[in-house]
Amino acid sequence: MDKINRSLRKIQGPDIKKMEEVREIWDRMAKPKGSLGKLEDLVVKISGMTSKTYNTIDKKALVVMAADNGVVEEGVSSCPENFTLGLAKATIEGITGISALARFTGSKVFLVDLGLGGDYPKDLGIINKNLMRSTRNFTKEEAMPRDLGLRAIEIGIEIGDLIYRDFDIIGTGELGIGNTTTASGVFAGLSGLDPRLVTGLGAGITKDQYEKKIQTIERGLDLHKPDKNDPIGVLTKLGGLDMAGLVGLYISAGKNRKPIVVDGFISGVAALVATRLNPLLINYILPSHLSSEKGSRLLMESLGLSPMLNMDMRLGEGTGCPLAFQIIEAGLYSFREMGTYEEGNMRGEGLVNIRGIKND
Amino acid sequence: MDKINRSLRKIQGPDIKKMEEVREIWDRMAKPKGSLGKLEDLVVKISGMTSKTYNTIDKKALVVMAADNGVVEEGVSSCPENFTLGLAKATIEGITGISALARFTGSKVFLVDLGLGGDYPKDLGIINKNLMRSTRNFTKEEAMPRDLGLRAIEIGIEIGDLIYRDFDIIGTGELGIGNTTTASGVFAGLSGLDPRLVTGLGAGITKDQYEKKIQTIERGLDLHKPDKNDPIGVLTKLGGLDMAGLVGLYISAGKNRKPIVVDGFISGVAALVATRLNPLLINYILPSHLSSEKGSRLLMESLGLSPMLNMDMRLGEGTGCPLAFQIIEAGLYSFREMGTYEEGNMRGEGLVNIRGIKND
Repeated sequence: MDKINRSLRKIQGPDIKKMEEVREIWDRMAKPKGSLGKLEDLVVKISGMTSKTYNTIDKKALVVMAADNGVVEEGVSSCPENFTLGLAKATIEGITGISALARFTGSKVFLVDLGLGGDYPKDLGIINKNLMRSTRNFTKEEAMPRDLGLRAIEIGIEIGDLIYRDFDIIGTGELGIGNTTTASGVFAGLSGLDPRLVTGLGAGITKDQYEKKIQTIERGLDLHKPDKNDPIGVLTKLGGLDMAGLVGLYISAGKNRKPIVVDGFISGVAALVATRLNPLLINYILPSHLSSEKGSRLLMESLGLSPMLNMDMRLGEGTGCPLAFQIIEAGLYSFREMGTYEEGNMRGEGLVNIRGIKND
Repeated sequence: MDKINRSLRKIQGPDIKKMEEVREIWDRMAKPKGSLGKLEDLVVKISGMTSKTYNTIDKKALVVMAADNGVVEEGVSSCPENFTLGLAKATIEGITGISALARFTGSKVFLVDLGLGGDYPKDLGIINKNLMRSTRNFTKEEAMPRDLGLRAIEIGIEIGDLIYRDFDIIGTGELGIGNTTTASGVFAGLSGLDPRLVTGLGAGITKDQYEKKIQTIERGLDLHKPDKNDPIGVLTKLGGLDMAGLVGLYISAGKNRKPIVVDGFISGVAALVATRLNPLLINYILPSHLSSEKGSRLLMESLGLSPMLNMDMRLGEGTGCPLAFQIIEAGLYSFREMGTYEEGNMRGEGLVNIRGIKND
């Protein structure tokens, strides 16, 4: 916990002065003020993190936290628990959604095992940080001992710190059968919202399974009565090791003053936990897409983030992040490459290119 | 009109069989069915256009139709009319939003003058197809003679046909001070909607100017009483030459069975005119972003398109298209590169990569 607290104390607010400078440059450019909308906002927000006027995200990482969830034995998922390891292997093989989108965008994937239930060869390519062979069934006991949850957060911080030495941005992903159930449990626990409002169909379940999923979450909430003012308690009682690892990544982003991208529902719930630990962290978190998983809109509203993409995606794995990387890069590029109006001349004759770029 | 009618008669519906084949391949891939949402839908839609299973959009064009609007003399815009030419020159110089985003995405910009009011050197790089030195003020007379409107549509078809010989996709852009006024007029004329519902602030006007803009559109509608069953009549009475050129581009996309991307409000109104001429055209039109210009949501709903991006952008020029190109390319790439589950094996052990791609 010492490491976590030290990291949390290091997090500063954004560099407001730098953000104002960047906004003023946007406002002088050859376009109506604010007309590039969120493309401008992204560039301003990143400058507030890094205190640099011109930023790039040439080096892009996707960190996929993988872990199994004991609550799967309640029948809340359409897939068996060992499917998580299968997907992890497939990601290493390069055939899953996140692998393809990572290659397309020139991003490197780091796959971290924090709690997979199954065995795999040492040289497979998975970063083995296994703390538990799957969490426990939260309808019967706490999902994980508090100290292991804290350790998972620390591991997330350590991995983030290492990656940010060489990379400009991290996208957050996860693999874990049953993790929409654990994420809905944590979101309900943190927000006090009715589980029915924040529970969706996950990878695709029947109506009966959906009712069972909601009842499972309600049973977990009834058993543990989590205190919403203790975000780590909510996480360790109802959550997963994947989410705990992601919480650590968000903390690392703030500590290193670099951007991190939230993906869908699970990654968003981890972001909510992180911002409850230190609200300043939101200044380092960039949105990506609005997942079609129920509860995602309420979640993004809780975070105060407005997603750029609306793709009806619900795959997880971090698949929204590479799509967001492309938009962020387009914004940073436009900010470097667009020209400005000559001071005070709005008649279309005084267009001046401050950076001397010509069309090719 | 003969050329237009010949082109319209050539347009066929999508290749449903090919679309089903592509959907089935998506469904066998290593992900829950449909979980990549619109990324899957885009790939399916394009296969319906081209009748090919695997498509690429390596060669990307942005066509920016530029024209001035006589109605600007009513004081509906925050910029003077000659600003259009200034923006056209700046686009050629490479310093506007569309120039920067085109370079970033490796797209080529074609800038076409259909009705600029001002003079410019021959060798500037603008494709000169000028038909009128600005349209007329639609509160006093029809914006353009019907035959010139038809000619502008023909020019759009001719340019589209030439570009589609060498390019895989076209993004639609426009430059024209006053063209949110003309677009709102055409949308109101086609839909019967109250001008107040479909008129926004354009590049940024005061409350008084906004009221004047609405009254100007109402005066135009009162004077011409356009027949919504005559889309070309609505366009030539209230619209602009930029929109007429874009209508031609949409027709060319359908004729050539290739994708075309709609940008914001003006490009969307042109798409609405085109689909009224032949509803099959919608099968060749891909959405990009939801512009923050008022009326955009109603417009996209009228077209039956669900935008992928929600960036609060209102710059026009076609700036939503390069952003959409990136998403479309990501979808086409994922479709080529993702692996499938082995038939009938959903236990995570039978993941098979049909295309033999390895992680790099």
